[in-house]
Amino acid sequence: MNHFTPELPKLAHINTDLLEQIQEKIDQKTKPIGSLGYLEDLAMQVCLIQGSIQAEDLNPSFLLFAGDHGLAQAGVSPYPQQVTTQMMLNFLRGGAAINVFCKQHDVELNLVDCGILEKIDHPKIISRRLGHTTKNMLHEPAMTWEQLRRGFTNGMELAQNLHDSGVNTLGLGEMGIGNSSSACLISAKLLDRPISELICAGAGCDSKALIRKQQILEELAVKYANVSQAWEIMRTFGGFELVTALGAMFTAAQNRMLILVDGFIMSSVALLAVRLDPQIRNYMIFCHESASKGHHWILAELHARPILQLDMRLGEGSGAALALPILQSAMAFYRDMASFAEAEVSKASKEESDV
Amino acid sequence: MNHFTPELPKLAHINTDLLEQIQEKIDQKTKPIGSLGYLEDLAMQVCLIQGSIQAEDLNPSFLLFAGDHGLAQAGVSPYPQQVTTQMMLNFLRGGAAINVFCKQHDVELNLVDCGILEKIDHPKIISRRLGHTTKNMLHEPAMTWEQLRRGFTNGMELAQNLHDSGVNTLGLGEMGIGNSSSACLISAKLLDRPISELICAGAGCDSKALIRKQQILEELAVKYANVSQAWEIMRTFGGFELVTALGAMFTAAQNRMLILVDGFIMSSVALLAVRLDPQIRNYMIFCHESASKGHHWILAELHARPILQLDMRLGEGSGAALALPILQSAMAFYRDMASFAEAEVSKASKEESDV
Repeated sequence: MNHFTPELPKLAHINTDLLEQIQEKIDQKTKPIGSLGYLEDLAMQVCLIQGSIQAEDLNPSFLLFAGDHGLAQAGVSPYPQQVTTQMMLNFLRGGAAINVFCKQHDVELNLVDCGILEKIDHPKIISRRLGHTTKNMLHEPAMTWEQLRRGFTNGMELAQNLHDSGVNTLGLGEMGIGNSSSACLISAKLLDRPISELICAGAGCDSKALIRKQQILEELAVKYANVSQAWEIMRTFGGFELVTALGAMFTAAQNRMLILVDGFIMSSVALLAVRLDPQIRNYMIFCHESASKGHHWILAELHARPILQLDMRLGEGSGAALALPILQSAMAFYRDMASFAEAEVSKASKEESDV
Repeated sequence: MNHFTPELPKLAHINTDLLEQIQEKIDQKTKPIGSLGYLEDLAMQVCLIQGSIQAEDLNPSFLLFAGDHGLAQAGVSPYPQQVTTQMMLNFLRGGAAINVFCKQHDVELNLVDCGILEKIDHPKIISRRLGHTTKNMLHEPAMTWEQLRRGFTNGMELAQNLHDSGVNTLGLGEMGIGNSSSACLISAKLLDRPISELICAGAGCDSKALIRKQQILEELAVKYANVSQAWEIMRTFGGFELVTALGAMFTAAQNRMLILVDGFIMSSVALLAVRLDPQIRNYMIFCHESASKGHHWILAELHARPILQLDMRLGEGSGAALALPILQSAMAFYRDMASFAEAEVSKASKEESDV
């Protein structure tokens, strides 16, 4: 639609010819048919993504994208904008939730500065800054086409580097004071639903602050009523961390990596990705249903069943990290359980008259 | 009620004086208040069980109890009764779902023969046989008072041994063709609900077999209409593996261990335990909501929120094993996350006029 918009990589179609073989392997395991429930669906999806009936070991890595939001100055969050940078320092020192969960599962966490208020010079921070904060949408779109293009390309490169180093499972997290407002505006637009159905307290507005946040977001929805195309939605309402995550999703899918989608905010990016190319949906595993009520509508639209429902609303990729061992359990049963033949276990009677 | 019934150990009351201190520690973590959702409740429960604001590392171990059921001969399951023994051999070789999940989490799995059809001599099987199968309830109660008492004592001893070796978290699993019928009868009786609301396909009845199963269970509910006391319910409808699990639960609670309750069948035992002493409920962590519809009613009665909802219906303790890393995540955030003060992160504004 615009010569400034990024070019999307071509995604491989999922080979559903394998479906029957994978299902047969699942049904030969020493358990009643279907008794591992959603784990069986997850095993199926992973095999289809990998394009093989051999389930390759998951080799996960997380990218945590941080960015600041000009809109935060309008008071959509109870936290000062400086918290994005403070939390980045907390991530560096290993004190945040996502650090603790990644450490628990022995997973690498890569910190990416996509443009936060105060630059931190540290060898462990990958600097892909598009600026020091997005523009305040009350006055102009959050970013320029050039920033959008660069952010998308940055995300692609980061995911490609991980793929090249052997990673096949990409967890995505975000940090940015004000970005639940972006997620709300993006998803309200893409789902054609009112702000009131998608708004959430974010990092924890009280009721008065939430009313104010809703007023601001509704004003923005009116101001940008003509914005309708996916790229333009990202440019107008997005964040530096969100457009970078979008690029990472596409390159992950291009390389047949699993995309671990976290909660409400990352799901709004996932929804936008699906609007750009519906094929990318096949590569997404939805990890946690957020307590943010708007998340429900995104999941319904994407026919997504999240692995966990723990009423969290933290972001950082925390839900994706928590779901990882469940996904690994799905792979473990698929690979390592004995079949009825191997274990010499009798199968269920098929003769109804026998029971 | 009866001089043959086992004596219950005295359970410590939960010290709710700690509640405020634990909550304060949770709220000081670098995250919006309440944003870790149900993980925060789990951390709280574990601390209260352990009776300390220091969350002690979980040292889990699983007991998998197997027993055969006389009622299986009436055709309540599509699997032949021999499958209990065959699965025991499968557990020994490491080929079943519970083996795979315990191996994934590096957790010890202890196999207990509580009375299966064909005795297996193997050093890895703990023999606590109460017989080679329970009696067929269509003719007489499943077990004698003596068997009930011995089974309960066996379970107590097994849990005590684990506690003495340093285990503080007890996962409980069961295997026994026909035992979903026991669970249905026990819970229907304790909840005073009709069989139709609690029956499930168990290991996988087709619709015709399920109708037959329901007829048999309804006949039994009528035959034993006068049975009403918890011990008598276990003696009449129970299984060798179920009464042994019951004993293990009580000794676990007595020693302030976490009791990881699996799906429908183990929850029916948990419900019976709570009827014997409501105090034991505090020590139970419900790990997975089964696809078996009756499980819902037990969970509602016990005000229990399971950690996972994966539509599984396998038993063996599989749901408890899968939930273990989530429980460990709850402990990890509680112990290892930085506080706002430690991380020098600004807290949310409390002045509504500031936002």
